[in-house]
Amino acid sequence: MKKFVNDPKNYVPEMLQGLALANPDSLRYVPEFNLIMRADAPRQDKVSIVQGSGSGHEPAHAMTVGRGMLDAACPGDVFSAPPADYVYETVKLVASAKGVLLLVNNYTGDRMAFEMAEELSEADGVTVRTLYIDDDVSVQDSTYTVGRRGVAGNFFVMKAVGAAAERGADLDEVHRIGAKVNSVTRTMGMALTACTPPAKGSPLFDLPGDEVEMGVGIHGEPGRRREKLRPADAMVRELVTAVVDDLPYTSGDGVALMVNGLGGTPIGELYLVYGLAHRQLTERGIQIRRSYVGEYCTSLDMAGASITLVRLDDEISDLLAAPAEIPVRFF
Amino acid sequence: MKKFVNDPKNYVPEMLQGLALANPDSLRYVPEFNLIMRADAPRQDKVSIVQGSGSGHEPAHAMTVGRGMLDAACPGDVFSAPPADYVYETVKLVASAKGVLLLVNNYTGDRMAFEMAEELSEADGVTVRTLYIDDDVSVQDSTYTVGRRGVAGNFFVMKAVGAAAERGADLDEVHRIGAKVNSVTRTMGMALTACTPPAKGSPLFDLPGDEVEMGVGIHGEPGRRREKLRPADAMVRELVTAVVDDLPYTSGDGVALMVNGLGGTPIGELYLVYGLAHRQLTERGIQIRRSYVGEYCTSLDMAGASITLVRLDDEISDLLAAPAEIPVRFF
Repeated sequence: MKKFVNDPKNYVPEMLQGLALANPDSLRYVPEFNLIMRADAPRQDKVSIVQGSGSGHEPAHAMTVGRGMLDAACPGDVFSAPPADYVYETVKLVASAKGVLLLVNNYTGDRMAFEMAEELSEADGVTVRTLYIDDDVSVQDSTYTVGRRGVAGNFFVMKAVGAAAERGADLDEVHRIGAKVNSVTRTMGMALTACTPPAKGSPLFDLPGDEVEMGVGIHGEPGRRREKLRPADAMVRELVTAVVDDLPYTSGDGVALMVNGLGGTPIGELYLVYGLAHRQLTERGIQIRRSYVGEYCTSLDMAGASITLVRLDDEISDLLAAPAEIPVRFF
Repeated sequence: MKKFVNDPKNYVPEMLQGLALANPDSLRYVPEFNLIMRADAPRQDKVSIVQGSGSGHEPAHAMTVGRGMLDAACPGDVFSAPPADYVYETVKLVASAKGVLLLVNNYTGDRMAFEMAEELSEADGVTVRTLYIDDDVSVQDSTYTVGRRGVAGNFFVMKAVGAAAERGADLDEVHRIGAKVNSVTRTMGMALTACTPPAKGSPLFDLPGDEVEMGVGIHGEPGRRREKLRPADAMVRELVTAVVDDLPYTSGDGVALMVNGLGGTPIGELYLVYGLAHRQLTERGIQIRRSYVGEYCTSLDMAGASITLVRLDDEISDLLAAPAEIPVRFF
């Protein structure tokens, strides 16, 4: 394993310490509960938004805390759901008079932790609602999941509910918006290589040098099938077709198109993939109105990419265009 | 080789096409000369800023074209300087009455191309100045370079001259600012793995599974030495020490600290590195005033990182804080 780590057991806390040190004015790291929160949280004039998940998907979710996005993230260890009591403590720390919305990508372990935290929080008198995100079209059930998995499309839900909360929407309205964005968002990804969790020290699964995993999950879960590596255009066409046919997106639809890197694929390749997907969608009469190219939800150092579409209407477009200030930025 | 490519010969143009498709309002791709320019260039009321280099360092430099940064980038093929006539055509396209500043990372091939383009442009009556960037403290001369190499610290030069040009500074003043930023900027990087150029199809050099290249160049050029892989804290200390001792940066200095990923290292590891560097610098009494963590200047899919320091004064801090709008962004 060739990584920047000290003791692999401390990978997540050392990463979060670095994140907080890089953002001293806007973020606060609470080591007792392994959480990152906005320095100005809780704000009683807005619904608080919380998401947790296993670590290893950065920038999701610790690096998406900030104005217009999350109020707090409670990451677990790498690819492990956060403990329920850490989620509960996170809710306590950001509890607002307007309530708390919990965002949960649909994995069984995460659901269990967040459901328990919701019960404990409500017993304390905090108003909490939970929204499950399940944008991955690849498979119905999976290694860690009943139903569909939540993957990179999650970013659009975070962005929309974050913007709505910032504008003062109440909890029901924020939840409605999140559910609506999730309902029009679809994603599929593929792996060129496996990833290596720091504590394991070796690749999580075996992928032969001439094969790819089509429909891979963000924890390396199997997708639809193994295939031979092919030219990018053919592989992108398979992803685009699966995503488009699922909702389905049809001629005349206006969409946001995201090409998300899984951690080990350079941004030059992601833009190449974007160009291919753009042309394939345009051939179908689908109109690309907003574009997102980069790393949004990764799987450690996995080489690979996912493609997400969101069907836009005026409300969603407006919320996606709202300002946000999160750590991942250039200048 | 496991990459998203079609014909490897078309890797760069297909990437640039994707970039332009993702930014239809702000960027224009000119395939005849393999360049990316601002849609609103040339602006006669400001100095135009141009940088070129081999491709494979994205987001440098094609993805740093936009308001407050570059007016155009003329990338060559992967790790190859752009042809002199393409640089010349780029200057023609963005020539402004206030002149053109060419930024060149110090590599012999790039210098030759840009010097020839400068001569041709001046014969046409365009006022051109060139600034060479050489922030890499690792080695004096190198595989492709006489003198020091230009690496990720280049971003601070681009940002400062871009901001100054946007405010209407004249060519001499913009050049003065760029030279000043370069003079207080130092970088050193290290590779955990080699990188694989698409047209080569195999790793550019051999690096054993338990070794790192300390002081690596961004084209895989040898650095100071091969070493055994060690815990992150020890490797970061070697980078920080080399950078600090070079200028030197001393107790009481206010600095910008950049941790730059080389393409294959996930952002979680980069934040871990940032935290270690932050603590080591703080122990020395150096005050970190601005923080940059992410990918700024990469080497295709190389796993590794570099550390850059910039000694700040009020003028530089102000220019770095100015707004910029470039393609690499979140929302």
